[in-house]
Amino acid sequence: MHHDEKHLKSSDTIRDIVIGMSDGLTVPFALAAGLSGAVNSSGIVVTAGIAEIVAGSIAMGLGGFLAGRTEEDHYAAELKREYDEVERVPEQEKIEVMEVFAGFGLPAKLQREVADEMAKDTDKWVDFMMRYELGLEKPEANRATRSAITIGASYVVGGIIPLSPYFFTDSSQRALYYSCAVTLVCLFVFGYFKSKVTGQPAFSGALKVLIIGALAAAAAFIMAKLINGGF
Amino acid sequence: MHHDEKHLKSSDTIRDIVIGMSDGLTVPFALAAGLSGAVNSSGIVVTAGIAEIVAGSIAMGLGGFLAGRTEEDHYAAELKREYDEVERVPEQEKIEVMEVFAGFGLPAKLQREVADEMAKDTDKWVDFMMRYELGLEKPEANRATRSAITIGASYVVGGIIPLSPYFFTDSSQRALYYSCAVTLVCLFVFGYFKSKVTGQPAFSGALKVLIIGALAAAAAFIMAKLINGGF
Repeated sequence: MHHDEKHLKSSDTIRDIVIGMSDGLTVPFALAAGLSGAVNSSGIVVTAGIAEIVAGSIAMGLGGFLAGRTEEDHYAAELKREYDEVERVPEQEKIEVMEVFAGFGLPAKLQREVADEMAKDTDKWVDFMMRYELGLEKPEANRATRSAITIGASYVVGGIIPLSPYFFTDSSQRALYYSCAVTLVCLFVFGYFKSKVTGQPAFSGALKVLIIGALAAAAAFIMAKLINGGF
Repeated sequence: MHHDEKHLKSSDTIRDIVIGMSDGLTVPFALAAGLSGAVNSSGIVVTAGIAEIVAGSIAMGLGGFLAGRTEEDHYAAELKREYDEVERVPEQEKIEVMEVFAGFGLPAKLQREVADEMAKDTDKWVDFMMRYELGLEKPEANRATRSAITIGASYVVGGIIPLSPYFFTDSSQRALYYSCAVTLVCLFVFGYFKSKVTGQPAFSGALKVLIIGALAAAAAFIMAKLINGGF
């Protein structure tokens, strides 16, 4: 039944938080772990970690902002083109509507009726072309700005967690143990909620997020050791 | 005219290269710039930079892989549900088809005819529901694996560029000048081609990519200096 269907779809804001926090928890964690394998001073780890968080949040936030703006511009340009075309070459555009329905096996007569009917309301006609011929959804207003801020802030929050133990101890080795403990727990909890809101199996989803973080950190640790002749 | 319309859409592979290289050029560049503001030895910058590249490429590559797999699972589950529903409650599903067309202003009689016609071919009917009711496109086979490798490799290629000057000189200050020169040129060229393949204005697109990279590097540099009392 229709009211029983649960086609779960996370909201855009939750998606942005997930994007930012997922990389924010993983990359600064792995960078700090890698550096801990190469230098003893936690001061350098903190400096590198903060530089990474600043760089990563700006790259991801501004990147999200510009991607959003590009999408808005693209939508506006295509919308203008479609309005222009239904004005200039309505028969051609009707044929395009018919082609969409031909693809679903409707007979030509019915295709024609649908196209004629749709052509009576220009706005709905253009809306149909945008969504079903071009596959474009109208972007939300101010989405780009909110998206940039949400992604950037989530990256910072995620990145501070693995870095925090390095603030409190001079030994990068000791800080690494605490950082692993804290971050792996947070990755698991984050993965659990991420899977919940996106409608995936929560436990296996949590494990996946945990494993990516652990693999990235282990690989960074091993590479940094290798470079510094640590093995 | 239809054959004159150029609704440019970059292929999935190009999109993956753009995703990986865009962050790969920006974040390791900014991290190296930030550390250069705090430490004199380019050895530490190289270690941190490589740890970041390893961590970032794994996080982005594996992240892309799991996102792709999740999308495939989600599609398969919804497809099974729709086949099940057109079997169990066909009238209800026909009403859902009619609702889609009601949204485009078709009269009830025509909605009914379209729904009845579509119901004659179960595969096309389910395909319609998947795409237009649920907005789900069939994911390409093996997309997740290829996507992971492309994104990860592009991140590595992008990240090696800003880091390369630090391999050849002991002074992180001197390396920073070369790194800025090389990377800003590469960001501009990359932004130019990225804009070309995505159908955006190439020059302003190139400038945007350049500015994000420069801002991230400047912010990381200033933060690292501040932490180390450099100002």
